[in-house]
Amino acid sequence: MATFSEAKLAEASPKLLFRQLFEKESSTYTYLLADVGHPDKPALLVDPVDSTVERDLKLVKELGLKVTYALNTHCHADHVTGTGLIKGKVPGVKSVISKASTAKADLHVEAGDKIFFGNLFLEVRATPGHTVGCVTYVTGDGPDQPQPRMAFTGDTLLIRGCGRTDFQGGSSQLLYKSVHSQIFTLPKDTFIYPAHDYKGFTVSTVGEETQFNPRLTKDEFAWTLFITDLNLPYPKKMDIAVPANLVCGLQDLVNNV
Amino acid sequence: MATFSEAKLAEASPKLLFRQLFEKESSTYTYLLADVGHPDKPALLVDPVDSTVERDLKLVKELGLKVTYALNTHCHADHVTGTGLIKGKVPGVKSVISKASTAKADLHVEAGDKIFFGNLFLEVRATPGHTVGCVTYVTGDGPDQPQPRMAFTGDTLLIRGCGRTDFQGGSSQLLYKSVHSQIFTLPKDTFIYPAHDYKGFTVSTVGEETQFNPRLTKDEFAWTLFITDLNLPYPKKMDIAVPANLVCGLQDLVNNV
Repeated sequence: MATFSEAKLAEASPKLLFRQLFEKESSTYTYLLADVGHPDKPALLVDPVDSTVERDLKLVKELGLKVTYALNTHCHADHVTGTGLIKGKVPGVKSVISKASTAKADLHVEAGDKIFFGNLFLEVRATPGHTVGCVTYVTGDGPDQPQPRMAFTGDTLLIRGCGRTDFQGGSSQLLYKSVHSQIFTLPKDTFIYPAHDYKGFTVSTVGEETQFNPRLTKDEFAWTLFITDLNLPYPKKMDIAVPANLVCGLQDLVNNV
Repeated sequence: MATFSEAKLAEASPKLLFRQLFEKESSTYTYLLADVGHPDKPALLVDPVDSTVERDLKLVKELGLKVTYALNTHCHADHVTGTGLIKGKVPGVKSVISKASTAKADLHVEAGDKIFFGNLFLEVRATPGHTVGCVTYVTGDGPDQPQPRMAFTGDTLLIRGCGRTDFQGGSSQLLYKSVHSQIFTLPKDTFIYPAHDYKGFTVSTVGEETQFNPRLTKDEFAWTLFITDLNLPYPKKMDIAVPANLVCGLQDLVNNV
């Protein structure tokens, strides 16, 4: 027989608290999601940045949330992840990244996995292309999950753009396939929340990107010609960020992560 | 007797499309709101910046919206408004600012005025203090208006902060009174969307600011001591921005605005 508190918990109606946070130097978005309908207010952070961890955790504390997971969409090359720092400051938090990334973490996820926070969850979709281990986290499908759905696309799909594909196991063919098969097949009103924006956009939708993304609306042949001709400079922080991000951002404290 | 199209219009269920846009140099937020439940998709822009007008209007065009108003929360001192440029590029758009600002515009608003876009509207609240003419635009109160409500507070209330009060008819006493009487009295879940953020926050709520705003949670005496002791530098763009913003951002084209 269920106890009173179990019964109360089961009755709890999930309610999303959502915050988008910006880190100016690398133009990175960090996302905070929590189920504030659950008595524990369990929360997760997607793509936290090392330099803004203090800000993020102060907000978490003020809002009375309990962070359970710190997720990365991929092993970033332009900034150092905040997951290791968060684990050091908030005991019990588990770092999450894809198995395919080969990066260290407490939890390695694969396509189809669900990451629960209270009665809400994120579904994992494998979207390789920018890196071999990129995933997109999508809010759950169901009557008690947020509507419209929300997709945290990392660098796979940016607003009117996409991530580069010329390093870290990147593949332009795979990125094209990932976006078309895993993101553009979501309902048109699904919100797109990327890991970066350089022009001041904060959100888009699947419907918008299928119509107006100048890169991903090309046919596959035109796309291949375009993406192989970008001649992008070497990322400034890559030689620091990638080794650090392979160990939750704590390159000097490998044993603690 | 109502015509078919009038009847269809009256039946249209209002539906908010909302976008927050960021201008990095002055850390300004511009807001796009539209009633996409209305056949004309009428839209308005709050606090557009001259340097990002092209971006904003491109988005408006892609989304199939019709901008009817370009609003300012006040006569800004840190950037040049985009309202004049928008009027030049989109015929029929009316610029809006408070009567108390003494700035030129097509429509001068006062406390209690309603600005309709389709079947949605913004209510005007006078919130002087940062400048003598500051207003806060709040989404309508009613079952067919967005819930929770949204308050576009300009520089009156920032996330965990507020605007300075030492120029342009500023008054620390008035700002304190404005926030407490006009903003903190809104429902606790009302979203706060400010004109600026310098730390990467995108939104807050009335409930949060009444608890955690380090300035406005002080009592009136402590607040006065604090605000008169800030010793802030003279705003870099003030001598360009204020004269320009008194004429919709088009200081050389006074007759056109």
